[in-house]
Amino acid sequence: MTQNIAFIGLGNMGGPMAKNLIKNDFKVTVYDLNAHVVADLKAAGANTADNAKAAIKDADVIISMLPNGAIVKSLYIGNNGLINEVKDDVLIIDSSTIAADDARAVAKACERKGIAMIDAPVSGGTAAAEAGTLTFICGGEPAHFEAAKLVLSAMGRHIFHAGASGAGQVAKICNNMLLAIHMVGTAEALNMGAQQGLDPKVMSEIMKASSGNNWSLQVYNPFPGVMPNVPSSNDYQGGFMVDLMSKDLGLSQELAAKSKSATPLGAMATQLYQIHQAAGAGGKDFSSILQLFQKK
Amino acid sequence: MTQNIAFIGLGNMGGPMAKNLIKNDFKVTVYDLNAHVVADLKAAGANTADNAKAAIKDADVIISMLPNGAIVKSLYIGNNGLINEVKDDVLIIDSSTIAADDARAVAKACERKGIAMIDAPVSGGTAAAEAGTLTFICGGEPAHFEAAKLVLSAMGRHIFHAGASGAGQVAKICNNMLLAIHMVGTAEALNMGAQQGLDPKVMSEIMKASSGNNWSLQVYNPFPGVMPNVPSSNDYQGGFMVDLMSKDLGLSQELAAKSKSATPLGAMATQLYQIHQAAGAGGKDFSSILQLFQKK
Amino acid sequence: MTQNIAFIGLGNMGGPMAKNLIKNDFKVTVYDLNAHVVADLKAAGANTADNAKAAIKDADVIISMLPNGAIVKSLYIGNNGLINEVKDDVLIIDSSTIAADDARAVAKACERKGIAMIDAPVSGGTAAAEAGTLTFICGGEPAHFEAAKLVLSAMGRHIFHAGASGAGQVAKICNNMLLAIHMVGTAEALNMGAQQGLDPKVMSEIMKASSGNNWSLQVYNPFPGVMPNVPSSNDYQGGFMVDLMSKDLGLSQELAAKSKSATPLGAMATQLYQIHQAAGAGGKDFSSILQLFQKK
Amino acid sequence: MTQNIAFIGLGNMGGPMAKNLIKNDFKVTVYDLNAHVVADLKAAGANTADNAKAAIKDADVIISMLPNGAIVKSLYIGNNGLINEVKDDVLIIDSSTIAADDARAVAKACERKGIAMIDAPVSGGTAAAEAGTLTFICGGEPAHFEAAKLVLSAMGRHIFHAGASGAGQVAKICNNMLLAIHMVGTAEALNMGAQQGLDPKVMSEIMKASSGNNWSLQVYNPFPGVMPNVPSSNDYQGGFMVDLMSKDLGLSQELAAKSKSATPLGAMATQLYQIHQAAGAGGKDFSSILQLFQKK
Repeated sequence: MTQNIAFIGLGNMGGPMAKNLIKNDFKVTVYDLNAHVVADLKAAGANTADNAKAAIKDADVIISMLPNGAIVKSLYIGNNGLINEVKDDVLIIDSSTIAADDARAVAKACERKGIAMIDAPVSGGTAAAEAGTLTFICGGEPAHFEAAKLVLSAMGRHIFHAGASGAGQVAKICNNMLLAIHMVGTAEALNMGAQQGLDPKVMSEIMKASSGNNWSLQVYNPFPGVMPNVPSSNDYQGGFMVDLMSKDLGLSQELAAKSKSATPLGAMATQLYQIHQAAGAGGKDFSSILQLFQKK
Repeated sequence: MTQNIAFIGLGNMGGPMAKNLIKNDFKVTVYDLNAHVVADLKAAGANTADNAKAAIKDADVIISMLPNGAIVKSLYIGNNGLINEVKDDVLIIDSSTIAADDARAVAKACERKGIAMIDAPVSGGTAAAEAGTLTFICGGEPAHFEAAKLVLSAMGRHIFHAGASGAGQVAKICNNMLLAIHMVGTAEALNMGAQQGLDPKVMSEIMKASSGNNWSLQVYNPFPGVMPNVPSSNDYQGGFMVDLMSKDLGLSQELAAKSKSATPLGAMATQLYQIHQAAGAGGKDFSSILQLFQKK
Repeated sequence: MTQNIAFIGLGNMGGPMAKNLIKNDFKVTVYDLNAHVVADLKAAGANTADNAKAAIKDADVIISMLPNGAIVKSLYIGNNGLINEVKDDVLIIDSSTIAADDARAVAKACERKGIAMIDAPVSGGTAAAEAGTLTFICGGEPAHFEAAKLVLSAMGRHIFHAGASGAGQVAKICNNMLLAIHMVGTAEALNMGAQQGLDPKVMSEIMKASSGNNWSLQVYNPFPGVMPNVPSSNDYQGGFMVDLMSKDLGLSQELAAKSKSATPLGAMATQLYQIHQAAGAGGKDFSSILQLFQKK
Repeated sequence: MTQNIAFIGLGNMGGPMAKNLIKNDFKVTVYDLNAHVVADLKAAGANTADNAKAAIKDADVIISMLPNGAIVKSLYIGNNGLINEVKDDVLIIDSSTIAADDARAVAKACERKGIAMIDAPVSGGTAAAEAGTLTFICGGEPAHFEAAKLVLSAMGRHIFHAGASGAGQVAKICNNMLLAIHMVGTAEALNMGAQQGLDPKVMSEIMKASSGNNWSLQVYNPFPGVMPNVPSSNDYQGGFMVDLMSKDLGLSQELAAKSKSATPLGAMATQLYQIHQAAGAGGKDFSSILQLFQKK
């Protein structure tokens, strides 16, 4: 029997994710504050609702993709929180990237009411959202994870169970902090080589075949002209914005403070992106950090 | 016709490299200050010589593997430098890891005398030296590089031409700086996840399949017990010592200063290894940087 | 006419502060969860109360000195918050060191009820608290600041008005971040000089007379034996603990994130104290950061 | 009897220093490659010479003020080094800021020939050079230091003996590293306060009276408009250029590497000035580092 899915939050990521659910024959009801994106989803075959409460009526699964933890908490557990309105056997999947403590607060409130909930932030950008090849990194009860997997498979290729509630957010944020670190490091190495007259293309080939190898070198080279079809070769347009990387790094440093974990390179990457942002680069792709090191 | 090769410097790397040349039927004459390692090579089939000058008499190719730039410069271009003693058509291959400027000084002196020389530092540790699977990163004239390749193939699997003289050293040092950065970053991410109760094995799997992926996660995980047969699972014994990584990071910061390149994460990694060293960890494998972050 | 003062929070700082009010002939009623410190204040001439609500009955001024923002918010504006119990013309002075946003939240709630409130965190340690020579850094309405000054003068020597509500907390945290930075910097400089054979006493004299001069060099030298009567000359006992400096640095990084301010040296100092804490130094004076750099 | 002084190197610092010697009735013979500055000194009463060798003939004291260690070594101990030409009882005073090892190399060569030599780098900028209020930080034999003091007093107010040969350079570089650290820290603190709406003037007053106090706050505030007559209030013109601070920080990191000293904040300050330089700020006063943190 087809599951009813309510999808809340139809931004650059949420929109294409909801469309992939429709393509996979789920019955999807959507809600977003922005009437424009709602209309776009309606055209793609979604039912629409005038508000979140109407959207989740009859939902077997609720998926949310929202900009921050305050909005997620207010949606589910605020004064008019949805967890007072849902069906008893609903499964809530929050795919927003938020602080682990916020995810745990929602999960705890759900648990008290016997409602199934997992945090399931994604890795991979808008292209992966469109292609249905996202990675989902989940936290919550194993049984809830197994149930969520059936739905998430329609939108992603890799679906991981990181641990208990909040663990999805922790693993996602650790991953993105590490991404920022090797992106900055790759930019430093390529820039220093170029300053010494080496060809960034040749250097990239050498380091990819050596111990410096990392995801930035493999699929997202920050040096213009080394790879086609990456933001650095398109004036740092598109991709994953500095503003968004800064948000994720902010979450990483909040988590570091809370868990009393030293993350010196994570902290330094956070600062460098802050400096880059202050210089006006917030809207560029995050691989543009190379420009901070280049002679003007 | 078999080439005569002189091999100078038979340490942990040089020894097994020379043996691989012998196995590949080169005629090898060796020299080292340490009589013990010379005897070992003799047993393996090498000719021996009482000093460097004697070793390079008749050599078609000279290979050196020495601890620092001062020694390399003194060997070749000092008051009694070998470049005054070599055959006209000799090829000099220096595989030591030294400052690019030192490599360039030797290359320039060779050029003035019409002698062929390339810098060819290696990536990969003692295991790769023994297995003949090293990576050579070379700088120098294309024709000299092609000639060197025939010999280097007996000791390595990947042989790269990074550019003009010194470029081998530049690319090697950039690579190792990037290695240090993603190793420290990987340690930070795994430690923070563990502090939040996540299983480092699970986290490693997730980040390997995501944008945090890098060489440290793939083949050299710093968290004890995640991977078999890596130093972290053997009390950080063996592998690549903190003292050696500190030396390479020192070279990277020298190069950064000389080329006026900002390398903030490289600088911070250098400092963290310095603190780790001051705490007495110089003899441990460099992945032990994780211990700097762990609660005592 | 003598003012009635309620004093809540009698820790290492709050206790001696309350005693100085008594010495200056204020009528002081105290409350703390710890019966032991309450008894101590009673012996010094304070009235005591069984709970906060009882303590503030009839109070013209309420002073609080508490460990964190959650406790401060809960005391004043929680479900049973004191602002529903106070006299209309009361003046609330919170001397706790907490996030500026927490201070602003309390101030805003007070403002809505027409209650006068200022944030007034202190600079100076327990010795200054006992001697009545603290520095108070205040935020709030000018008129409220002037009123508070009369009371604060009994406990401190310098009383500053930093700006609107929360500004006291901002200035305090900026100051302590800068303190941490020049303390770490001073430790780095003295250690490097000592490694080169210079006498830390001589170096300290030189830098105090030169452009390196700062408060750490002047009154709180981190190198053992340079100054008498400072923690470094007493095995880093007493003074301002690493744990407390870490708390303040945590607040600085929270503020930096909220205000989108780059603070790279502040971030790095935060990380170094985190590493120092992980190594077990949380209970030592904060000038012990020198030990992180010294050879073991 | 009046001493004959040879002064070599008449740049922004050397020129006014030589003039102060003349004003104090020393007989001064000068040399510089730049004929323009030589003419200026001639007008001020100096004898001139066509080359260094001619300048030092008959000199009782030689003072040099040169841009880097290579030039200093070449002047004194190169193939045509002056130490082969000087009078037996000459006193050499090198006031250049150079690596301690370079200073030691010159001192060692002097010692072998029985020539007195001290390193005596200065603290204080061109204004102090003109006013004769420089600080000299000296390394060398106590007797040589005492002899030098008589001459240096004509150019400076504070004259310190830091220790053996090279110690003057070590102390100078440690001081300037610490200066860079508290300048960057002061800029971070003032910028964060300003971002929160505080008045930088008020904040500066508060921190000067508190534990954040340091030389930058006292006499060289980096925030425009807080102090009159400092570079920040004059569009960062004049003062001590970013390029020169970068040079000194480079020397500090060389020294840190050589002495195996961790200087994490020193390293980070070095990187920030490198980034600032790459953005084109090399010619501004070093307090302009504030601009790196300000929103564009």
